[in-house]
Amino acid sequence: MTSETNLTPGPEHKFTFGLWTVGWQGRDPFGEATRAPLDPVETVTKLAELGAYGVTFHDDDLIPFGSSDAERDAHIKRFRAALDATGLTVPMATTNLFTHPVFKDGGFTANDRDVRRYALRKTIRNIDLAAELGAKVYVAWGGREGAESGAAKDVRVALDRFKEAFDLLGDYVTEKGYDIRFAIEPKPNEPRGDILLPTVGHALAFINTLERPELVGVNPEVGHEQMAGLNFPHGIAQALWHGKLFHIDLNGQTGIKYDQDLRFGAGDLRSAFWLVDLLESAGYQGPRHFDFKPPRTEDYDGVWASAAGCMRNYLILKDRAAAFRADPAVQEALVAARLDQLAQPTLAEGEGLAGLLADKSAFEDFDVDAAAARGMAFEHLDQLAMEHLLGAR
Amino acid sequence: MTSETNLTPGPEHKFTFGLWTVGWQGRDPFGEATRAPLDPVETVTKLAELGAYGVTFHDDDLIPFGSSDAERDAHIKRFRAALDATGLTVPMATTNLFTHPVFKDGGFTANDRDVRRYALRKTIRNIDLAAELGAKVYVAWGGREGAESGAAKDVRVALDRFKEAFDLLGDYVTEKGYDIRFAIEPKPNEPRGDILLPTVGHALAFINTLERPELVGVNPEVGHEQMAGLNFPHGIAQALWHGKLFHIDLNGQTGIKYDQDLRFGAGDLRSAFWLVDLLESAGYQGPRHFDFKPPRTEDYDGVWASAAGCMRNYLILKDRAAAFRADPAVQEALVAARLDQLAQPTLAEGEGLAGLLADKSAFEDFDVDAAAARGMAFEHLDQLAMEHLLGAR
Amino acid sequence: MTSETNLTPGPEHKFTFGLWTVGWQGRDPFGEATRAPLDPVETVTKLAELGAYGVTFHDDDLIPFGSSDAERDAHIKRFRAALDATGLTVPMATTNLFTHPVFKDGGFTANDRDVRRYALRKTIRNIDLAAELGAKVYVAWGGREGAESGAAKDVRVALDRFKEAFDLLGDYVTEKGYDIRFAIEPKPNEPRGDILLPTVGHALAFINTLERPELVGVNPEVGHEQMAGLNFPHGIAQALWHGKLFHIDLNGQTGIKYDQDLRFGAGDLRSAFWLVDLLESAGYQGPRHFDFKPPRTEDYDGVWASAAGCMRNYLILKDRAAAFRADPAVQEALVAARLDQLAQPTLAEGEGLAGLLADKSAFEDFDVDAAAARGMAFEHLDQLAMEHLLGAR
Amino acid sequence: MTSETNLTPGPEHKFTFGLWTVGWQGRDPFGEATRAPLDPVETVTKLAELGAYGVTFHDDDLIPFGSSDAERDAHIKRFRAALDATGLTVPMATTNLFTHPVFKDGGFTANDRDVRRYALRKTIRNIDLAAELGAKVYVAWGGREGAESGAAKDVRVALDRFKEAFDLLGDYVTEKGYDIRFAIEPKPNEPRGDILLPTVGHALAFINTLERPELVGVNPEVGHEQMAGLNFPHGIAQALWHGKLFHIDLNGQTGIKYDQDLRFGAGDLRSAFWLVDLLESAGYQGPRHFDFKPPRTEDYDGVWASAAGCMRNYLILKDRAAAFRADPAVQEALVAARLDQLAQPTLAEGEGLAGLLADKSAFEDFDVDAAAARGMAFEHLDQLAMEHLLGAR
Repeated sequence: MTSETNLTPGPEHKFTFGLWTVGWQGRDPFGEATRAPLDPVETVTKLAELGAYGVTFHDDDLIPFGSSDAERDAHIKRFRAALDATGLTVPMATTNLFTHPVFKDGGFTANDRDVRRYALRKTIRNIDLAAELGAKVYVAWGGREGAESGAAKDVRVALDRFKEAFDLLGDYVTEKGYDIRFAIEPKPNEPRGDILLPTVGHALAFINTLERPELVGVNPEVGHEQMAGLNFPHGIAQALWHGKLFHIDLNGQTGIKYDQDLRFGAGDLRSAFWLVDLLESAGYQGPRHFDFKPPRTEDYDGVWASAAGCMRNYLILKDRAAAFRADPAVQEALVAARLDQLAQPTLAEGEGLAGLLADKSAFEDFDVDAAAARGMAFEHLDQLAMEHLLGAR
Repeated sequence: MTSETNLTPGPEHKFTFGLWTVGWQGRDPFGEATRAPLDPVETVTKLAELGAYGVTFHDDDLIPFGSSDAERDAHIKRFRAALDATGLTVPMATTNLFTHPVFKDGGFTANDRDVRRYALRKTIRNIDLAAELGAKVYVAWGGREGAESGAAKDVRVALDRFKEAFDLLGDYVTEKGYDIRFAIEPKPNEPRGDILLPTVGHALAFINTLERPELVGVNPEVGHEQMAGLNFPHGIAQALWHGKLFHIDLNGQTGIKYDQDLRFGAGDLRSAFWLVDLLESAGYQGPRHFDFKPPRTEDYDGVWASAAGCMRNYLILKDRAAAFRADPAVQEALVAARLDQLAQPTLAEGEGLAGLLADKSAFEDFDVDAAAARGMAFEHLDQLAMEHLLGAR
Repeated sequence: MTSETNLTPGPEHKFTFGLWTVGWQGRDPFGEATRAPLDPVETVTKLAELGAYGVTFHDDDLIPFGSSDAERDAHIKRFRAALDATGLTVPMATTNLFTHPVFKDGGFTANDRDVRRYALRKTIRNIDLAAELGAKVYVAWGGREGAESGAAKDVRVALDRFKEAFDLLGDYVTEKGYDIRFAIEPKPNEPRGDILLPTVGHALAFINTLERPELVGVNPEVGHEQMAGLNFPHGIAQALWHGKLFHIDLNGQTGIKYDQDLRFGAGDLRSAFWLVDLLESAGYQGPRHFDFKPPRTEDYDGVWASAAGCMRNYLILKDRAAAFRADPAVQEALVAARLDQLAQPTLAEGEGLAGLLADKSAFEDFDVDAAAARGMAFEHLDQLAMEHLLGAR
Repeated sequence: MTSETNLTPGPEHKFTFGLWTVGWQGRDPFGEATRAPLDPVETVTKLAELGAYGVTFHDDDLIPFGSSDAERDAHIKRFRAALDATGLTVPMATTNLFTHPVFKDGGFTANDRDVRRYALRKTIRNIDLAAELGAKVYVAWGGREGAESGAAKDVRVALDRFKEAFDLLGDYVTEKGYDIRFAIEPKPNEPRGDILLPTVGHALAFINTLERPELVGVNPEVGHEQMAGLNFPHGIAQALWHGKLFHIDLNGQTGIKYDQDLRFGAGDLRSAFWLVDLLESAGYQGPRHFDFKPPRTEDYDGVWASAAGCMRNYLILKDRAAAFRADPAVQEALVAARLDQLAQPTLAEGEGLAGLLADKSAFEDFDVDAAAARGMAFEHLDQLAMEHLLGAR
């Protein structure tokens, strides 16, 4: 049984929220805002009350686009004061390279060269602020880097420009001595018909081509991978395997459709369970960052209920995953499903290729039909997981 | 106007077909075979007549699973004779690690260690044959490497096993001195609920972790990426950008659903046009390999009509893409859409980060609203492409 | 807390299984059978032990295609004996119009007229048996009624043929005086590229055109609607609203992809919760029929574990849905979300159109901004549901 | 070869555009407007120049929400003058029940009763204007009628409210003597997580329950059905079969993702070909209404290029479909594919059920294997279609 203590969020859980999440006013492609703007200071105060650990922002969330330097300073000062008053941290920041119409064809990969230069400068400016506020991760979501039609973007050339941008940013933080690493956030589509680096895999491959690959990882978002029908925990496992899970965006999505940004737990609940199980058992140390949008049907009571729900659902799932892993029946079932054998190298220690080739039991004398007849016992194991998830065991 | 000469397939077009494509008997999840088995020798003869350049195979396509050594030799001998008689080549071969029930939980990443060893031996055996027959590419489709439920596969551990397998195979071809490279074929799902290395991106990232990454590339399949809703030409462009397009599987798919393997051109025709445009303008030198399944409604007349259609559609699209690129109106439209600017580095030669930071025209004095007001002229460009595709220009 | 008593399946729960479900041997598009055939008598015995209420079948599941009349009688006799011995019922039967290659282009809408006649006769023959065995519902899944290419099927004409078939079958059961109604099972695709009557909605619309619409309803399957990205409980609600939910196929599916037929509860668990909530609160009286396929990784222990899991998951969800509806906090939340107002007609009793037009408070004096500012309180309500589902409340 | 004459749009082609299509300013979920507002009078003038037949509107497109009666009259007067000057017609109008935040939970099915009353009054007011301007079709897109979470909407009760609304509107136009019919526009999701009446099928079924079903048909939109992965021409064929295709929205969509509203022809081009073939051969007499959004990358030159492209692509496809149907090779291929047999009733004239049951050739003596062996010749037929589409024949 879950104890309430386990379910009370606190700074130790490293729950963080973007200013743009609870602050989303509900404007969608077919409708106007349903909520008044939210003052970032109020957001900080309220998140702290709810048990969050930190807050994150795009430059334009904190400092409205087009602010003068004096206005900018004033916005930052108020924000810092709220952070100081509440103890909330800023573990991550990012740049808005998508809202202003100048970015309609992209930022780092816009066809227009002057737009690309502007995007780099806008980013660098906000990296300085991120460093000042102590952020350790700088996220790059290239939502406008893409195309709706085939000739509008030469993808190979655009990847050259993308690499140029990340190489420059890597130089910048290195020269400045900032303790900041970058996290690329992939998305397959929306708002562009197709976006470059559409999945965690594409981003991981791209990172390997950079001048300073060690400075760049990924920031996968639940709904983004699910918009491509991909198994999110599988993608996270691969990112962890590459040592590249620098940050994560938690939310909910009900399958392949527009980007929903539901609260964490809504959408594919079983996938959320396996995700929490993975993050916790892999020892992921970064923030649990909720990048969600409280539905526009809600007023601010609903917004805060939705934010609290994100954290509470994470904690319930964490509790259930721990019980699942601790259950002796599960441990037996894992052996019955031969997960222990998967963990063993395929070659014996010191065996080498020659050994494998010489082993008649591996091929010539292998009883393929007997091996085929062994059941994998996965359904029993999965039913145990289901019952732990449902609190029915 | 397209001349018929351009549309007659010949060896110079490097069209290849798998034995299992035209040889598919039409057994699907809900129905029995609708066509009698096809003798590989007949396939070779018929493909040569139709203008193909080569033929490819899984071990079990050519040599039925469980054949004795003598039977195996006889099958190979007949096949070689047909190749010699027709001049058809074997540019690629691959292993069947999915049909026999022993592979129900995978080959290289099966939980059962003895199945993994068997899978490696089965693969190595067929690599020897591939080398003998002159194949330069060895494809690895891990269709059974995956899971239907969350605890059944520890993905990080499975990736260790996957890497172990490819490292061993790399050792093997190196030791043997074979002029063979591997091509991993990604697929998001089917026959497993989720398959490891689900997209071109995930496979490219994985390859970077191998001991001999230079030996391994990708073999993307049109329908596989489209089953994840991804833009296929974009994925191919990224693979080319990484220098990893070692092979390609051409077919058709009508969106996110079961794997359809329609003939090339069927399904997303506009995407097929951009694909051919890309392959031809990027100077891709490998085979144009059709991995399709003639619908089970067809008898063998229909099968050969379908195979001929694959090649003819490629040639029509090649012709249209060439006309598109040669059209002065298109060249103007590309400049109007600033593709020329995309090809220019974002920094001027020798400018460096300091130069960018010092350039007030890049940020402080940048007229962001004027830049935002410039139209990208993509619709005009795309309409020109549409009319070239339709032969209406 | 869920008591174990509630979770023990018994005949009162009306759980039924098709012979083809637990009897699926695991042959898929890429692999051979992994399990030996299952004797229908063993299926009946085992299902009875597990607590099922009934068993269903396609003609060819019980009587292999091509059996002589004497063989047929023998198969039926053994099956009846098993039913008698166990008390299992046969509430539904159906026809296999998809496995034999003769149905490669469809049954009732095949282009070949003689195939259509044969399909009708095959169906009628099995209706006689269904009636004999006491079935009250006869399911029609037209999985082969469709096309892969545009000119291959004239859909309007095919719908004429579809109507002709159902009108004839309606005549047949009427003439015979059978107490049998038909249930059309929609599916969007697979095994055909596109299937006619692809969703619950299309089938409901079609039924209205029949000569005896009262004899025909729908048999929606969880995964089939989810293959089109549709909300399954919404579709069921519409079917109930039309009075047409004659039968239901319960299983699991993880989004838009090939037809997975996972055990009930696997896949979209939250949707399964809302489905059970709806069936139970709407007073649906028909069988809870599991149309699933135990994964081919399993041996028969896994098969029976999977079947037991279907029933257990239904019972857990039923228990949770009841607790959700009984919770006073939920009842308050439903009022806060104005579900009570939705249940009120929009016009007052006796008001009429004239009344509405005369009501200035409805338009001229309506404070649209005040109304817009009211939060709907859906997130709070949904979080309550989540916590009931998870047994965390 | 296509002659240019065929490709010049004129009123005879009945091409119509919504004010909100070319007038879309490019605001999307992640970005601000990229284009200045467009004066409806300029839209009318420009569309007439391009060869359109008519223009359509939501009330709020023409008369900004919140206008006084005097402002309203002025807007209408200017619009009428532009119509008179250009000869453009208004064949359809519709209500905006989605932009204002008051509709955040729906219009006709909002939980709030006063919102439902307001929605009805807003609709009725614009029906009066539609009638004045000569519109014959009144479209109802219920984009906000839906939910993101399971308990927030009781779907059966919501359908009661939906029916109540359409019954009232049917009463209204009947009482007024307006020559107007309604067309329901289905959509599966976006902006709601799931929308009621998600497909053409669900809407057709719903219409049958109305008091005046003859007054209500459907307005299917290409992209909306494709967002559910459905075959659009199949859905249109079923709507025609029911006599319910009252209007149609033409645009482009690249598969299952957010609503793209690309210009007609973009997206699934082969499906567009079959759609035009169907509309033209079925004798559909209504407007060809383009409901698209010129990408926000475009300035107004791009907008008009995009609008012109919609019409031009329709005309090219119409020309190709006519050539396909006229080609003797196609006519032969259709017979080879037994489309002629599909058009024949399954029972002979006067045969009846008894005749079918007595016909041994239909079952007892039917050579099922010989029938199974006949190829359907669909690939040849589809390749002919491909070559006509591509202008390569």
